[in-house]
Amino acid sequence: MSLATATRASCLADESGQEAPYLLTPGPLTTSATTKAAMLRDWGSWDGDFNRLTAEIRERLLAMVGAPRDTYACVPLQGSGTFAVEAALATAIDRRGKALVLANGAYGQRAARILDVLGRAHVVHDKGDYLPPRGEEVAERLDADPEITDVFLVHCETSSGILNPLAEIAEVVKARGKGLIVDAMSSFGAVPLATETVPFDVMVSSANKCLEGVPGFGFVILRQDLLAASAGRAHSLSLDLLEQWCYMERTGQWRFTPPTHVVAAFHTALAEHRAEGGVAGRLARYTRNRDRLVTGMRELGFATLLEDRWLSPIITTFFSPGHPAFEFGRFYAELKARGFVIYPGKLTQAESFRIGCIGRLDESVIARLLDAVREALAAMGVDDCRPAA
Amino acid sequence: MSLATATRASCLADESGQEAPYLLTPGPLTTSATTKAAMLRDWGSWDGDFNRLTAEIRERLLAMVGAPRDTYACVPLQGSGTFAVEAALATAIDRRGKALVLANGAYGQRAARILDVLGRAHVVHDKGDYLPPRGEEVAERLDADPEITDVFLVHCETSSGILNPLAEIAEVVKARGKGLIVDAMSSFGAVPLATETVPFDVMVSSANKCLEGVPGFGFVILRQDLLAASAGRAHSLSLDLLEQWCYMERTGQWRFTPPTHVVAAFHTALAEHRAEGGVAGRLARYTRNRDRLVTGMRELGFATLLEDRWLSPIITTFFSPGHPAFEFGRFYAELKARGFVIYPGKLTQAESFRIGCIGRLDESVIARLLDAVREALAAMGVDDCRPAA
Ligand SMILES: Cc1ncc(COP(=O)(O)O)c(C=O)c1O
Ligand SMILES: Cc1ncc(COP(=O)(O)O)c(C=O)c1O
Repeated sequence: MSLATATRASCLADESGQEAPYLLTPGPLTTSATTKAAMLRDWGSWDGDFNRLTAEIRERLLAMVGAPRDTYACVPLQGSGTFAVEAALATAIDRRGKALVLANGAYGQRAARILDVLGRAHVVHDKGDYLPPRGEEVAERLDADPEITDVFLVHCETSSGILNPLAEIAEVVKARGKGLIVDAMSSFGAVPLATETVPFDVMVSSANKCLEGVPGFGFVILRQDLLAASAGRAHSLSLDLLEQWCYMERTGQWRFTPPTHVVAAFHTALAEHRAEGGVAGRLARYTRNRDRLVTGMRELGFATLLEDRWLSPIITTFFSPGHPAFEFGRFYAELKARGFVIYPGKLTQAESFRIGCIGRLDESVIARLLDAVREALAAMGVDDCRPAA
Repeated sequence: MSLATATRASCLADESGQEAPYLLTPGPLTTSATTKAAMLRDWGSWDGDFNRLTAEIRERLLAMVGAPRDTYACVPLQGSGTFAVEAALATAIDRRGKALVLANGAYGQRAARILDVLGRAHVVHDKGDYLPPRGEEVAERLDADPEITDVFLVHCETSSGILNPLAEIAEVVKARGKGLIVDAMSSFGAVPLATETVPFDVMVSSANKCLEGVPGFGFVILRQDLLAASAGRAHSLSLDLLEQWCYMERTGQWRFTPPTHVVAAFHTALAEHRAEGGVAGRLARYTRNRDRLVTGMRELGFATLLEDRWLSPIITTFFSPGHPAFEFGRFYAELKARGFVIYPGKLTQAESFRIGCIGRLDESVIARLLDAVREALAAMGVDDCRPAA
């Protein structure tokens, strides 16, 4: 059975026999049938069987970034990815520290808002909707303001789909001895990230992105010494990463009730990630998806927001056609009726929409999506897909 | 197919054909096969289909407490129940307010710890391991300290299983015009709670207790005027109930990625709750479970921690036998080998263990559990179950 057939079967959702659409979104995404089937069992959160799942997951995640087990910690946290970002910021940044937030979209902005709420000093280096922050600029900011202790960067800024130049920024940050906090929510598991090549201090991701689990928890991988130094820093009991870590290390359990079924699904998803060839295998499939998508959409006349060099293999932003008959709500509905859910744009300036390449789907699905786009445009009477001038 | 047979079938977990044990714990608990099967579909968290699930759940929960839709709000929150308790405390208690925390176990203590971390003024009225706080005492505390603005009470304190006298305390609190915050985590859905009879301001529960969903989110039902007055009060972006509510009201979506599969499972679980006769039906089944359990265990010589009048239909604490051959780890393993997972005790003073009555199980399961207890004791060579003197 091909991946496409297997997944299609897995999408057979409700008893009505209605097929669930493919989610061409940045997560929650289409997961494998086996990953979902792992949720058909109830687990005692106190029980040894469940603790083994948690331990294996934590170990596997550390191995994925090549993090030495005695210097880095992997701390899963209940809630959505934002909860883990908030916990990471509260843990990593000293109450008297100051963060430089590199922003070029919604998730960089969100980190700045979190720091506002936490009352931690920070400055934002804002590149607008789609330009990448570059190493040089970061160097300038750091050299100009020695009070800055930490730099926050979104690896793949999902609001545009841009893959920010992490390695070049990491080099600059580390050369100046500053802390580096990476929101790798939408890239982790598909875009390589290893402590050896990118010396990050803290990285945050979640179950339901490129690792193809279902949503319900995030996780933070960070330096143990940094974690240990964070005692008393947390602003929240629930979001206290150090307490979560200590409890897990001591008991093997999550500190508060874990989303057991979601954790079990993630355990299966990780095995499938490994079977696909790990990060390299997943990157290859997502890249094929993205290339097919971008080529096909450009053939239809659509334009991408980003130059090719900044395109991620995660999600791509397309400008909405300037044609008067194009209306996103209608386009969405036409595609959904054909089995595909896409995503609205998140740009402040231009009308746009996004299509994801991640989840349990391959080029054959993208090919069918392109057919559906063609049909949708025809149904709407849109015969020119160039953006408004 | 009887409930027991259906559930037993639903416990058929992994491909090995190994049956998952019954979870006689206070949640995560044994859920129905249909509830778990609702997780076999992926949902777009932005999509209208999913928003409908969320809207129906929120409406159903408000209806369950008879809360008028124009004066109360239901705000679901990602994470475990503790996350929702923390969010509720941060929202309900003014930064210049002062809380009286009624504690008789771990969850009352946890609320006090949350207030410590939040830096909100509070005093604890601590009744130890198993005595209920009474209306009279609360009245005395309130009359002696007019600075107190809010009272926090755990409805069923799961650490002992005691059902605290909520109605009598609510009366006293309301007569004095104070705020009442109820942690109904482990009672909601099985022990009646209605705004008309118990005029609470805030109540917190979660998906994976008596409503028999799987874990992954909690929810808060609270007065809308109180919520509106909380602007700027939250200490956390992720745990800001007002922002979560405003966003949901405006868009129908969760503010950050929801645990979609868990939400879908909960939607099914709520339908099954209704089909069983709602709170009354569930209370009746749990009460039968509890009665059978307590009677059976007493016949074996076990003693309960609590007098009958304080026993909840949720979970019961039994003293460990004083017999030298009794060892909890062994007892746990013997029962697990026979298909039942029980819970360790949480008392500071005496050796004990807990057995839950909640989840998709009925008296026939309890009867089989009692057989298993008998066999386990025989295997361990314990022939006297009376507690140590
Ligand atoms: C880069 C990035 N950061 C943070 C988040 C927030 O995650 P969540 O929606 O799970 O809170 C997302 C979600 O898409 C993301 O893509
Ligand atoms: C009364 C009560 N409050 C709070 C909690 C905490 O919930 P969670 O473990 O989901 O954080 C529990 C959990 O059992 C509980 O029983």
